[in-house]
Amino acid sequence: MLTVYGDSASGNCLKVRYVADHVAIPYRWIETSVLARQTRTASFLALNPAGQVPFAILADGRPLSQSAAIMLHLAEGSALIPADPYERAQMFQFMFWEQYSHETAIAVRRYHKHLMGKPDAEIDPGLLPRGNAALALMQGHLATHDYFAGGGLSLADIALVAYTRLAHEGGYDLGPFPAVQAWIGRVEAALGLPAA
Amino acid sequence: MLTVYGDSASGNCLKVRYVADHVAIPYRWIETSVLARQTRTASFLALNPAGQVPFAILADGRPLSQSAAIMLHLAEGSALIPADPYERAQMFQFMFWEQYSHETAIAVRRYHKHLMGKPDAEIDPGLLPRGNAALALMQGHLATHDYFAGGGLSLADIALVAYTRLAHEGGYDLGPFPAVQAWIGRVEAALGLPAA
Repeated sequence: MLTVYGDSASGNCLKVRYVADHVAIPYRWIETSVLARQTRTASFLALNPAGQVPFAILADGRPLSQSAAIMLHLAEGSALIPADPYERAQMFQFMFWEQYSHETAIAVRRYHKHLMGKPDAEIDPGLLPRGNAALALMQGHLATHDYFAGGGLSLADIALVAYTRLAHEGGYDLGPFPAVQAWIGRVEAALGLPAA
Repeated sequence: MLTVYGDSASGNCLKVRYVADHVAIPYRWIETSVLARQTRTASFLALNPAGQVPFAILADGRPLSQSAAIMLHLAEGSALIPADPYERAQMFQFMFWEQYSHETAIAVRRYHKHLMGKPDAEIDPGLLPRGNAALALMQGHLATHDYFAGGGLSLADIALVAYTRLAHEGGYDLGPFPAVQAWIGRVEAALGLPAA
């Protein structure tokens, strides 16, 4: 059986859980706290030299890290990866954009504010405008599309929804982004998640 | 014909060039300088709201951004994407790791030091140790493997080599990482590149 080392407070880890649940792949979840530095112990670093969760041991015993790579592997052959080459390319475009330009602002600010409990004055002031720029880009796309790649739910939506639905915990206001709010509701419904 | 907006000083843009050349897809290259803010003009932002290069207009006229997404699209059906599912998953693992943990240190420090000409004292002191940690992780993998995913050249090697072969421009010393140096030589030879 698939084993996933994950922190339930981490959107990157929840992405893997959302995909495994959606495609009905059974797994064992080993709760691994980033804040408690359980990803930095010698035994964990021996498993994953990158010292990050999520981290998977596949059913055949082989390791795999990086949330997006694990999602892509679990979703192979499912409708979460569009069959059309251009729609698939758009899925990749938004998955890489999420990791580079969205997660690095929205998830990082949430980590400092919500998980570490830092006051705003101690948080990098660049994170709020950068996160809002990412939300504005999403709003621009979703103003004319229901999903990020093709006409239905794909891994791009799952990758993007994980931290967007928790953006309020990072101090972001989704009020100016109504298409983003509506899309969160669609994706939560498709994944069977309660409203965050 | 494929059109690529790219900055020849940017490793992310060169990745696309390396892949297109390797799989022999013809393209028109439109030199677009990041330093000169040509990615921030109104006309460029109308093409790509993310304001980044590389940016592609595919042969059928449809747009695609994100270097990794463009590489994956151009390389479809080629040996640069391993057919084996686990090797392909490792390719994705290293491509996402590169964008999150390698480029954000090694490429960023090179940008400040080499392209902007900043003195070391004005560059984020965290970038040097973070980049060296990324190089150490690569050294650990390459000590027992010739390539990053499977037994031959893949997109993971192209994604990683682009900035690793220019790391000295960012002030990184590859001396402690001999397996990385040897791998750079292998990948440069496979791509027909002169030593950087």
